[in-house]
Amino acid sequence: MILVGQYDSPVTRRVAIALHHYGIPFTRDTRSIFGDAAAIGRISPLTRIPALVLDDGEVLIDSASILDHLDEQAGDAALIPRSGPQRRRVLQMTALAQGTLEKVAAVVYERHFHPPEHRSAVWLDRCLGQARAGLDELTKRLTTPYACGAALTHADVMITTLIWYMQDRMDEVLSPSAHAALISLAEHCEALPAFRAAAPSDFEAMPRS
Amino acid sequence: MILVGQYDSPVTRRVAIALHHYGIPFTRDTRSIFGDAAAIGRISPLTRIPALVLDDGEVLIDSASILDHLDEQAGDAALIPRSGPQRRRVLQMTALAQGTLEKVAAVVYERHFHPPEHRSAVWLDRCLGQARAGLDELTKRLTTPYACGAALTHADVMITTLIWYMQDRMDEVLSPSAHAALISLAEHCEALPAFRAAAPSDFEAMPRS
Repeated sequence: MILVGQYDSPVTRRVAIALHHYGIPFTRDTRSIFGDAAAIGRISPLTRIPALVLDDGEVLIDSASILDHLDEQAGDAALIPRSGPQRRRVLQMTALAQGTLEKVAAVVYERHFHPPEHRSAVWLDRCLGQARAGLDELTKRLTTPYACGAALTHADVMITTLIWYMQDRMDEVLSPSAHAALISLAEHCEALPAFRAAAPSDFEAMPRS
Repeated sequence: MILVGQYDSPVTRRVAIALHHYGIPFTRDTRSIFGDAAAIGRISPLTRIPALVLDDGEVLIDSASILDHLDEQAGDAALIPRSGPQRRRVLQMTALAQGTLEKVAAVVYERHFHPPEHRSAVWLDRCLGQARAGLDELTKRLTTPYACGAALTHADVMITTLIWYMQDRMDEVLSPSAHAALISLAEHCEALPAFRAAAPSDFEAMPRS
């Protein structure tokens, strides 16, 4: 099994953490979607990461779809219940964190692909406001010790990789005081073996603008 | 049950089609994320659509998460199997179509939020190339009569709402010849009752740039 993607992508890292947590062995293809787009495009048609190449050659795309497959393999060990209100709760917290990430990434891309004088202030304000609202809502809904209760779930993984990305790349709406609970959860999770095993290496970074 | 969102959003329309297909009654909140962002933000923290307000007031966000919940209610009538290779296949075709949509939407947003002289040619070329590759791959994988075999699935719904959006808003990478099979599938699906019931009204449109 080959995981395609660099760990500065929170959704790629999210899949890697689940693989480590489930004890599923895998290797990595760390070529870059920016530096080596053609090579990634031959594996993943949309030139997006993560992609997971199964042992029979089938290629899965999209982090949520990949995890749906891995969760099925994991059975009762899955980081989400198979059904019911607790599944809904984990999916909702995960969607909030991923939606927040998408707004943060929109800001990063706007800044990366446009020189300062060409950036849309309206778009940036809109995305920054949505990202801040996402962090506020996640903070409001968070429980202890984990995001959705007593056990680690996909929500904790998504929140932790989101916080890592923001601290690395765009932290202006991440408040050390207002979002202290999220930051504290992320610190706790980063110390767990599966998260440490999926720590980004120095070479894994999107080109800076 | 209240579905929040306008049908010019393919992912909102996707949820509406599933609700109609499952025979689940619902009303709609058609306020706009652009024209009435504050009102939508009070319902959906990220100011994103679709959101689904359940009868007990719980608000679900994110189309895939909403559909996961509705599929559970639908049981054997769900537009996706509960597990196994066929579930994986439906999720993969759906992810390809949704990923293609995200690239098309990125182009639409770049053009909406930037005057011509401030648009990033690199970003537009990148997104247009990814969107074209997505359409090519979907075409390659398509079966008949439906995208994943003999029965209608979430993949057909996502593909159909994608094609509708492209024909309405950004059709320059949609080829009438190369992507004829996708367009033909969309035409077939649009004639089905659940799709007709979720047809966009004239007032449902993102402000044009």
